[in-house]
Amino acid sequence: MMEPEIITSLQNPRVKQLVKLRDRRPRDQAQQFLVEGYRQIRRALDKGYAPAELYHCPEWYPGDQGNEGALIEEAAAAGAQIVQLNKPAFTKVAYRERPDGLLAVLPQWRRGLDDLTLSDTPLLLVVEAIEKPGNLGTILRSADAAGVDGLIVCDPVTDLFNPNVVRASTGVLFSVPVVITESGAVRDWLKQWKIRSVATTPAAEGLHTAADLTGPLAIVMGSEQYGLSDDWLAQADETVRIPMAGQADSLNVAMATIITLFEAVRQRG
Amino acid sequence: MMEPEIITSLQNPRVKQLVKLRDRRPRDQAQQFLVEGYRQIRRALDKGYAPAELYHCPEWYPGDQGNEGALIEEAAAAGAQIVQLNKPAFTKVAYRERPDGLLAVLPQWRRGLDDLTLSDTPLLLVVEAIEKPGNLGTILRSADAAGVDGLIVCDPVTDLFNPNVVRASTGVLFSVPVVITESGAVRDWLKQWKIRSVATTPAAEGLHTAADLTGPLAIVMGSEQYGLSDDWLAQADETVRIPMAGQADSLNVAMATIITLFEAVRQRG
Repeated sequence: MMEPEIITSLQNPRVKQLVKLRDRRPRDQAQQFLVEGYRQIRRALDKGYAPAELYHCPEWYPGDQGNEGALIEEAAAAGAQIVQLNKPAFTKVAYRERPDGLLAVLPQWRRGLDDLTLSDTPLLLVVEAIEKPGNLGTILRSADAAGVDGLIVCDPVTDLFNPNVVRASTGVLFSVPVVITESGAVRDWLKQWKIRSVATTPAAEGLHTAADLTGPLAIVMGSEQYGLSDDWLAQADETVRIPMAGQADSLNVAMATIITLFEAVRQRG
Repeated sequence: MMEPEIITSLQNPRVKQLVKLRDRRPRDQAQQFLVEGYRQIRRALDKGYAPAELYHCPEWYPGDQGNEGALIEEAAAAGAQIVQLNKPAFTKVAYRERPDGLLAVLPQWRRGLDDLTLSDTPLLLVVEAIEKPGNLGTILRSADAAGVDGLIVCDPVTDLFNPNVVRASTGVLFSVPVVITESGAVRDWLKQWKIRSVATTPAAEGLHTAADLTGPLAIVMGSEQYGLSDDWLAQADETVRIPMAGQADSLNVAMATIITLFEAVRQRG
């Protein structure tokens, strides 16, 4: 049996490409993205997303889970190319401060609005121009917990496949159906499917708890810095605000999203 | 008129002390903490918290707000010692990646349970052993937005004056009444004041939306890793859970706190 080749050179083209995938342009050119760590790769595999490549470094394994071998076998069976790195090489490609010796490269995907499978009374979350990866990750987690039919990301400033979004999403990226598109197309599509849009803005008169959130519904949230665009505010079926007791910016967009989604969950209970 | 002294040496004892204040032990020994940036120092002053020292570096001013001079004068009038640093020295003491040339040292404070001013129907938030500064910061923001009478931090793992808590709180640290104490004392005090405790745990039968959250109330949340301790679970008046559609760990403690607090706000409406 041949010994597997182990990458030891920091100048190796694969090492260089893995570092490049942290940046959006090379990531989009390659149509790939990074998924780091056992738990996240596990979740990708469990949801049927096969890595194109899986890099591993036994010297970095934490040693307390011991499931790396099974994960690697499963990835290989799903078609992933398996490549071993020595510790300095893996340290260079790892994005985390404390790596666990596993890093996968997955193909990016694109879903259109028509790829969404809608329930009888769909609940959708629409977010416009989110800037911070941490917020988009938290929004993904909220969408998962609330059981939305889909998360529609309009005119993204931070891209879905940013390593910090992937990390902050704790694997939810692989379970929530996410569509990336532009706002006008979403508004047309919502009208076509007779889905009511409720937009959240501090300038609204009515509270989110006073709105009827029970029917086919899209909750629409704006960006951190600018809120919702005028087109969304003008064309939403209803605007609502969250009551605020303290300083004006106590709630960020991710927090406002959680509150509004779970009020919808309560009403639909 | 004398020229003000400008610190230029990275070996200056003040520079060294400012770096030390990032760590808990020297921070607790000095009973002081760091507040960085115009907005946060502004909020401290607005709420009546006077810095002991204010460090500034005009070479780092972003140049678009131009209010640094007024802030410095106000801090000086409140009793702060004003010290100028040159750019290398300020770069060393700044905690942020992109400093704005302002860094204050404030005295720590201690409030006891009996220092809280309770409304007729108090709403309190109790958190146990929170580990991550970012979560404690987000919890502070939620508590502010929900208008709680007080945030009671039990058995803290991360301390309230950690620079990352201060930053994540976006100045709310200066407006929400926060008490730091241990759990047993809180349970006795809640009983004494006939304040109902509702504890959130995934193991509860009833949903948070089914509980009566209208009377004198303490919402109790556990730590990221361990949830609530057995004593809290056994002695809370009621336990509730948040409905979860997706994977088990989609909601973290900060997200669960927001959801529960705003359900209480809705019911108390």
